[in-house]
Formats: sequence, structure tokens, C-alpha cells
Amino acid sequence: MGLLVVGSLGLDTVATPFDKVEDALGGSATYISLASSYFSGPVYLVGIVGEDFPKRYIKLLEDHHVDLEGLQVVEGGKTFRWSGKYHYDLNVRDTLFTELNVFENFDPVIPDKCRKAHFVCLGNIDPVLQGKVLDQMENPQFVVCDTMNYWIEGKKDDLMKVLPRVNVLIINDSEARLLAHEPNLIKAARKIREMGPEILIIKKGEHGALLFMEDVIFSAPAYPMEMIYDPTGAGDSFAGGFIGYLYKSQDLSPASMKRAVIYGSALASFCVEKFSTKALEDLSYLRVQDRYREFLTLSRFDEYD
Amino acid sequence: MGLLVVGSLGLDTVATPFDKVEDALGGSATYISLASSYFSGPVYLVGIVGEDFPKRYIKLLEDHHVDLEGLQVVEGGKTFRWSGKYHYDLNVRDTLFTELNVFENFDPVIPDKCRKAHFVCLGNIDPVLQGKVLDQMENPQFVVCDTMNYWIEGKKDDLMKVLPRVNVLIINDSEARLLAHEPNLIKAARKIREMGPEILIIKKGEHGALLFMEDVIFSAPAYPMEMIYDPTGAGDSFAGGFIGYLYKSQDLSPASMKRAVIYGSALASFCVEKFSTKALEDLSYLRVQDRYREFLTLSRFDEYD
Repeated sequence: MGLLVVGSLGLDTVATPFDKVEDALGGSATYISLASSYFSGPVYLVGIVGEDFPKRYIKLLEDHHVDLEGLQVVEGGKTFRWSGKYHYDLNVRDTLFTELNVFENFDPVIPDKCRKAHFVCLGNIDPVLQGKVLDQMENPQFVVCDTMNYWIEGKKDDLMKVLPRVNVLIINDSEARLLAHEPNLIKAARKIREMGPEILIIKKGEHGALLFMEDVIFSAPAYPMEMIYDPTGAGDSFAGGFIGYLYKSQDLSPASMKRAVIYGSALASFCVEKFSTKALEDLSYLRVQDRYREFLTLSRFDEYD
Repeated sequence: MGLLVVGSLGLDTVATPFDKVEDALGGSATYISLASSYFSGPVYLVGIVGEDFPKRYIKLLEDHHVDLEGLQVVEGGKTFRWSGKYHYDLNVRDTLFTELNVFENFDPVIPDKCRKAHFVCLGNIDPVLQGKVLDQMENPQFVVCDTMNYWIEGKKDDLMKVLPRVNVLIINDSEARLLAHEPNLIKAARKIREMGPEILIIKKGEHGALLFMEDVIFSAPAYPMEMIYDPTGAGDSFAGGFIGYLYKSQDLSPASMKRAVIYGSALASFCVEKFSTKALEDLSYLRVQDRYREFLTLSRFDEYD
């Protein structure tokens, strides 16, 4: 049935205190697709690029068995571009420019063969478009949705219409506080789940992630990183690892959901080890499992005696 | 042999958005002693108070089997007082006043019977005094030390003399960054351990704690709290639960150290549920174990499949 991923594809120009890249492969759909490709295919990508989108990036996605039938390539159009600069502590970034280009008129069209997909990952795009994607699906059974402060502040009403239609919302801690108008994350989680998603994941960067599901709270550790080369795409890689594992396992129990959070954390930890999508390009399932085992070692303690 | 606790005793006047207390029992030695009292005795407390220190607080400590032979009561003296006000998000607090009073001339004298103690917990006091305590010990085998930004900024040289003499340093994340001049906590931990303590614990408040020991990194979750009534003493309660468990188990292996971090986290989570020391006054070892089990549930996930 496949896993459908909808989001942005872009060319990123990123500077960190350590290095700089220009027109590197970026975009939420890109990171999600690459991260989920290490679990089980097929991954269907729906997005939009301009004629200037480098062929080598197309090939890279295809080499990872990402099906691009749903990728709109606009003749004469320019690809979405974003440029950001990270500060020394890497938690703060300035957006230097955003050129929407062809992304401004993105109207996602889901190819017929993908409409039957049961697993859908809605990358961080306009909630109106997220809704349009769901309108085209025949029987989506497990929908994961990402969003950000930009939509929470600017398109709250539209976001509120999408939330009851998704199974999992993935946001970071500041977005959770903003969405719920509540500084305490545990209370914020309750409020957000009342908005629709029965499962909520709050990412806390260097402090790990929290999963809220049924009456379960699960606290996932963060991978201890001495060096973060480029934080771009970490959240999308998390989403990709998360849904990729669940699609592979076809098990939506709390125990499986916890494992999926760890796989998401693992993919995010790989992502930030190199610039752009570099670290996601040559992983293997074995290396992903090794990292999973490191998360186990990191957080496991015995029963009391 | 007993467990020796040295630190402050005080009368705290605390306001949070929810309530206010005046001249409540406070001080690092108080919280550490009460927290560790739920594990195994005897706990020897060394500290100083004035004649105005309420008898009921003496009785409270004695009821928890805290040995007060080392408590100096200064005739005609006034007890150390501190007043603080917490803001809405409880992570920010203003100190309204600090009256050192008898604490200004505190010169810790360790009673003969306590000098043989192998387990020592140095609460957050002047590092010069922490050194004086260690000078009086015959054969301290496991020394836990707390400190804070005030000493890191104001008495760095004295602190650097104490650090090689302690086995465990417990500090929070901002103190770790300050002490190491390094924003990345993993790198900061390495630098700090090079200053002396072979074991380092970094407390991260609502994000849990990190333990660094040998080549092990352990990430402990935070207990999910919907309501924090009074954060005062949480760090001291952590230290008390941590050393209390280790003293009881007499096992200093990494596995035991991880359990101790969870017991410390458990005691800290109890501490903030009520004002002042209230929540630490009527616990039981069974309730502590129940909470330990909740930490297990919160953080446990399976091997991958």
C-alpha cells in the first residue's frame, strides 16, 4: 500500500559556525522520505520543484526507492529556496531569506496509485494543503502531522480543522506551549490532544522527546551529541524514522509507538551529524539498529532491589 | 558508620503564584537529610542555627532519625534566612533577601563519632568550608558535592581545590555550562570530570538528569509534573535520595549509580509537590519505591524487533 509523504522540497543555503553549504538538498518531504526509506518501501513523495531542481537530487531520492510520480516539476519555475544561519549554540537560527517560488502555488495532487495508502505523513506545510491531501485519500488509517509556530500563529483556524483528522501530531516544546497557551508541557499535552490528535509527540531537542498516547507517557532520551554540524531537518528526520518504523512493523500498540519514537530520535541524531541530507544518504538498517541499541544503553536502569 | 551531611539550615520565606509561606524549614542540609532518611540511617547532620530556630524543626529532624550532635546552636544568634519569589513558569526566581546571620561565621566541626563516616554529602556551601569538612574526615570513601553559580563565579579557585577531593559533583545544566565555559553539555561534562570528580551528574529540571561515570552516559527522565508547588529544595532532595540509596546499598557500580539517580529524581519529584519540606516529612520507603516504578514505566522501551 505504501507510505505517502507530502511536504516541501527545496534548495537550502545554510551557515553554521563550522561550515557553509549553498543550494543543498532540503525540504521537509526530502528529509522525511530519506529517513523513512531505511525501513520499508515504497515511499511515495508528493511535492513540487522548479525546472532548476538538480537531476542529481532526483537520482538521490530514486536511489533510496522514493517514488516520485507525485513530484510536480514546474517548467520554467524556480525551486523553493531557504537560507539560514545558526549561532554558536545551534539552538538559535536566523532565516536570511525565504523564496517560495513554485511552492507558492503548490496544490498537492495525489496520484491514483497512492490514494489507497494507509500511512500518511504530512510534512510541515500550510494546514489548508494538509487538509487537501487528506481529502484525496481513500482510507487513511494512520496520519502523522508536523506543523510549526508559523502556522500556529498565522493559520490557527485551518490548523484546528486538520488536527481532528490526524492520529499523531509531532511538534517541539515551544510550539506545544504556543498551541496550548500553557507553559507546563504535561498540561499542554492534554489540551492539544483535546484538539484532535489521540497521540502527541513533543520534541525537546537536546532533551529528548515525550510521547503521549492513551494513558501512557513515554520519555525518550536524546542521543548525547558532542558536535552538531547542522540541525536543519532533524525534526523531519524524526518524523520519517517514526512513521517509517511503524509502516514497517504495522503495529500501532503503545510498545511499538515507543520504539518508533526511538527510531525517530535515532534518525534525527544521524541527520545532524553532517550538513544537509548528507548523513541520511548512506545509512543502513544495521547502523540504525546499532543506534537504537545505544538509546537502550543510554536510558536503561534496573528494577529496584 | 553513618552518612554525614553538611550544609545550611535556614528559615525560608517563599512565594509562588499559588501560595506563600513564612519562616518555613529550609536549607540544603535539611532537604538532603530528610530525603536520605527514607533509605538507611544514621544520618549525621552538621550545620549551624540561631537560638530562634524553632524547636518543632529540631523535633522534625530527630523524628526522621537525623543525628544532630553536629548541629551548632548559637546562643543569642539568628538563623540564616532566605526569601524568594517564583514566577509563573517556576523556572525563574527572584531572591528577595538573604540574611546570613549565624551562617556567616559557620565553621563546621565534625563530631568525633562522625569522622569515620565513609559517605559524605557536601551541601551547597562555600567551597572553603567543604574543604574544611573533608580535612576532618578520617577516611571518606564516597564524597558527593553540590555547588552553585554563586561559588563558580565568586570562588572558582577554592572550588577547583575541592573538586579533586570529591567522587561525585552534582550541578544543574546552566552551572555545568558556566563551570566548563562550554555550551554543549557532553563536552562540558568531559571538561568538568577533568577537574577532579570521576562521576558527574547534571540536573536538567523538567528534562531529567544526566549521569557521567566511567565511559557510561545515563539519561534519566524527569517525572511528569502537572503542578509544581514549590521548587525550593528539589536539587538538595535529589542529592539526598541519591546518596541515601547508595549508602543503603553500599554498591557503587554503574548499575547502582543509575538506580541512585532515579531515587534522587524520585525524591526531588516528591519535594516539589508541596511547600517547603512538607512533602518530605511523611513519605515512606514504599511510596518511594512506587515512584521508582513509575520512572521505570515512563522510560522503558523494548529491544528492537
